[in-house]
Amino acid sequence: MAVTEADTDPMEMPYRAHGIPTLGFSEYWYPVLTAEELGRKPKPVKLLGQDIVVWRDGAKLYALEDRCPHRGVKLSLGECYYKGSGSITCPYHGWTFSGTDGKLLAAIMDGPDAPITRKVTIRHYPVREFAEMIWLWPGEGEPAALEEELPQFIGRQDSFFTIPMYTDYKCNWRWLVDNWGNDQHAQFVHRSSPELFFQPVLPFIMTIEPKPLANGKGMAFKRLGGVTSAEFPGLGTFPNREWWRFMKPTGRGNIRGFENSKAHKVYGIENQSELWLPGLVIVGRLSGEYCLVQWAVPLDAHTTRCFNINNFRRLGALREWYDRIHYKLWRGWAHDRIFSDQDKVLVEAVVPGPERLSKSDVGVIAWRKFAGANARRPPGQVQREAPRDVA
Amino acid sequence: MAVTEADTDPMEMPYRAHGIPTLGFSEYWYPVLTAEELGRKPKPVKLLGQDIVVWRDGAKLYALEDRCPHRGVKLSLGECYYKGSGSITCPYHGWTFSGTDGKLLAAIMDGPDAPITRKVTIRHYPVREFAEMIWLWPGEGEPAALEEELPQFIGRQDSFFTIPMYTDYKCNWRWLVDNWGNDQHAQFVHRSSPELFFQPVLPFIMTIEPKPLANGKGMAFKRLGGVTSAEFPGLGTFPNREWWRFMKPTGRGNIRGFENSKAHKVYGIENQSELWLPGLVIVGRLSGEYCLVQWAVPLDAHTTRCFNINNFRRLGALREWYDRIHYKLWRGWAHDRIFSDQDKVLVEAVVPGPERLSKSDVGVIAWRKFAGANARRPPGQVQREAPRDVA
Amino acid sequence: MAVTEADTDPMEMPYRAHGIPTLGFSEYWYPVLTAEELGRKPKPVKLLGQDIVVWRDGAKLYALEDRCPHRGVKLSLGECYYKGSGSITCPYHGWTFSGTDGKLLAAIMDGPDAPITRKVTIRHYPVREFAEMIWLWPGEGEPAALEEELPQFIGRQDSFFTIPMYTDYKCNWRWLVDNWGNDQHAQFVHRSSPELFFQPVLPFIMTIEPKPLANGKGMAFKRLGGVTSAEFPGLGTFPNREWWRFMKPTGRGNIRGFENSKAHKVYGIENQSELWLPGLVIVGRLSGEYCLVQWAVPLDAHTTRCFNINNFRRLGALREWYDRIHYKLWRGWAHDRIFSDQDKVLVEAVVPGPERLSKSDVGVIAWRKFAGANARRPPGQVQREAPRDVA
Repeated sequence: MAVTEADTDPMEMPYRAHGIPTLGFSEYWYPVLTAEELGRKPKPVKLLGQDIVVWRDGAKLYALEDRCPHRGVKLSLGECYYKGSGSITCPYHGWTFSGTDGKLLAAIMDGPDAPITRKVTIRHYPVREFAEMIWLWPGEGEPAALEEELPQFIGRQDSFFTIPMYTDYKCNWRWLVDNWGNDQHAQFVHRSSPELFFQPVLPFIMTIEPKPLANGKGMAFKRLGGVTSAEFPGLGTFPNREWWRFMKPTGRGNIRGFENSKAHKVYGIENQSELWLPGLVIVGRLSGEYCLVQWAVPLDAHTTRCFNINNFRRLGALREWYDRIHYKLWRGWAHDRIFSDQDKVLVEAVVPGPERLSKSDVGVIAWRKFAGANARRPPGQVQREAPRDVA
Repeated sequence: MAVTEADTDPMEMPYRAHGIPTLGFSEYWYPVLTAEELGRKPKPVKLLGQDIVVWRDGAKLYALEDRCPHRGVKLSLGECYYKGSGSITCPYHGWTFSGTDGKLLAAIMDGPDAPITRKVTIRHYPVREFAEMIWLWPGEGEPAALEEELPQFIGRQDSFFTIPMYTDYKCNWRWLVDNWGNDQHAQFVHRSSPELFFQPVLPFIMTIEPKPLANGKGMAFKRLGGVTSAEFPGLGTFPNREWWRFMKPTGRGNIRGFENSKAHKVYGIENQSELWLPGLVIVGRLSGEYCLVQWAVPLDAHTTRCFNINNFRRLGALREWYDRIHYKLWRGWAHDRIFSDQDKVLVEAVVPGPERLSKSDVGVIAWRKFAGANARRPPGQVQREAPRDVA
Repeated sequence: MAVTEADTDPMEMPYRAHGIPTLGFSEYWYPVLTAEELGRKPKPVKLLGQDIVVWRDGAKLYALEDRCPHRGVKLSLGECYYKGSGSITCPYHGWTFSGTDGKLLAAIMDGPDAPITRKVTIRHYPVREFAEMIWLWPGEGEPAALEEELPQFIGRQDSFFTIPMYTDYKCNWRWLVDNWGNDQHAQFVHRSSPELFFQPVLPFIMTIEPKPLANGKGMAFKRLGGVTSAEFPGLGTFPNREWWRFMKPTGRGNIRGFENSKAHKVYGIENQSELWLPGLVIVGRLSGEYCLVQWAVPLDAHTTRCFNINNFRRLGALREWYDRIHYKLWRGWAHDRIFSDQDKVLVEAVVPGPERLSKSDVGVIAWRKFAGANARRPPGQVQREAPRDVA
């Protein structure tokens, strides 16, 4: 239990000591759109507070800063006027920029020999289409190899297929990632979600043991002990008055059996739950054939795109057909809407200020330390020392 | 006539010299909700800029600051999970606080023996249900006895019953209380209200004599002289072109006969109009059997809850039945909507800045002086001297 | 080509060096309403950031600052209570102000002999109804003679009649006037407007020669050269893939023939396009019988009323009847809606910041210099020197 140090900006209080930035870690890939959203028209995207235009030219994708340096108009109102050239043309005077390097290829109203051509360059962003999503690199450094950055469930599209969806939350991204730190909110918040409704509540008063992953990308949480009911003197039992919990733990509710599960024994998955930089959680299932990745994408200081990336092992066409139907009829509704929205309501109701962290926040504290100490920083910015102990 | 002194914040100009605070006087009870509004779910309330959660547990009421100190979520999204304990449980991790003293009774996810229990306390607020309303004390000092604070029409529920309603105004509370200072706006603004439509306008060019009440709680206004018509050279008469005023003064229109009225002679009511701290007006009727109290409740600097509290003398079940029907069919519409909304439009149209006060503002000036000099202040804050003469 | 100097406020960057004010040039007449909009009730108007109330009393018009100095209420909620007096009466306590000079004529609730009468004065504004519009002078200096200020198409109502309309743009007025500086955006932006759809694009890569007008009120733009198609190496032709342009240039599309046009030869109009202070554009047509004036009226820093003033030569009742029908059925839609809205989308999408001006901005640069050096300034403010060369 600890009190994080006070500070003038309440929103920064819990994060300043760890150097976790308001707008997110910049030197990482982020999913920003589903692939099917990006049609023939350029689309404006906000990412880490930056305005970016993304567009397709045939099979290729391009991304530039979303402002024409000539007279300031948003390029996202323009179009890829010269198909095949990988360029975007400003709707105001036809300034045409290369999506490859941000160079001004033509100022159409000035004519082909205009002296300004190729003298102006705007910022371009690494962009990829992968696993049914559009990915952007908002950082200043060289982009990492996307596939190697990603959890295997997303990165290995030969073995998995993906159904992504997202919802925009009115909150800072850090409150959402804190929510994923195995802080035992799930046992309380989600006990009435459709997936767990008739089952006992998930075990609580667990001991959480966070451990860094061998790959350096994040941490796993070992969950020990826990009860499914407890008596609070002077108050009553938890859970209370919930007579309808007659089922045995199953599906998501069965979090005990991981060591003996198919996920572990057959597929060799080591941890049921991992939290990765720059801010994503991997939530496995005992079968090992389905895995959810949730990714907190900071749009600006007060808006976070929560990507729910559903990953299914490729087990043949028939099974894929079943998985897709099952997602449409059950999982997409039960988890990506009902379950996730239970968190949305709460993280959107955070009033910034000092915290009083407690036993169940071990994972949150460990995550903040890990992230602050290990996140890639922009070139020229010193890698942080291990932070002074604030928790 | 006087010019109040200029200042940098236009909204504070007329009030700074008197020390009348932007957010209201804190050491008073305020009505915040009607009793019927507060059902089984906790309700968030803003009062004097403070976020407060109010809830019922059986017959009892509780109020705490509306933020869980653990991770910052609004407690008003939670519930009274342990009925009979007078507690509220945070929806995020089940931190459970006593409504009686704000102490943390349990951190459910940490278990019954969690060391943090009883080490954390949040602010609790005195709260009461009384006269069909929920009352809060936002001050730092010991709460006064509610019944003794209130005008007798509300305070003595053995003799009176109450029909409350409210409307939220988009204005600072001080503009609304100024509106109640017998500044002779009524004669002008309300001359076409349903209650007065066919009557002569209320007498204007009156001499207003403000006098402090013996109980120290406010002031009364003695109204002398006045005419119901006057000729303005070069302009015309007031009222002008209003041929339909053929009725005699009656009901609210008859403001002359107070000394000979049943209110005064039979019931011993001394003043037809009183303005009380922290910001409420008592408007009697000649019969003495009905009395309206209007209360300006500062929610924040720019929002004021105008409570219209209709008070009826208890004269038997039949009369009560008649009064309730009459309120539903006539008074609730004619006064609490039409008449009050005529003021709402105006106080919401105030543009903050310097004022030029004049003869008819005697009551407003007297009120500001009285309130500044006599309002209870938070413990430790020096009672104000009588302010320097600014008007 | 030039980079305008950086500055702390991005919105001011391109304009500070020229002294072009955020809120517009004050010492000019501006159209603020159409005449038919102003009925029997006073109307609030915002102009150059100032709140003004305008009202009619019979045939006469008046304008005052829109705040009663007594207790701050907006006068525009009041009425002209004494018809024929040219006054407005505050809705709160009946303070009645002369529209002629802003003097307080009566404080009705204080009575005819109230000492405050005639001791209080508020700001009054010169106001005129002319050419189907209401005109205000927001400046501090003596108003100029309206008719002589105006382009002849509006000013000479014996020879012309006018159909005005306006749309409010969410942008600073300067971005709209820049749009009128013959920057060859029209050739690009409007190439698919209904008026030009089947014609070749307007000639681009023109040489623009700005020249000050002899009357000192603005500048004209001589347009030389230009092509209707060009090849951009590595990209393609402009226009591209637009096979439907099979018509000959006609109407607005025929911008070449001005020297030989009826407008010039018969009516003696010297320039097809002129940009005048304080921020209006005159766009002639070859026939000389119709002329559009567009006027950028700054309401506040972020809102601009774009007045489209359609001017028709008086050629007899039958022709007027035809012109009005034609406006309703074609021009009002094709130009004042579709064509103008193509600009609206763009100027509303400007992201303030540094610019990179180029060859086609010759007119914009010339306009900024001319306006900064020649605009009338408030009394006491030194007339600007010619600005240092920033472009």
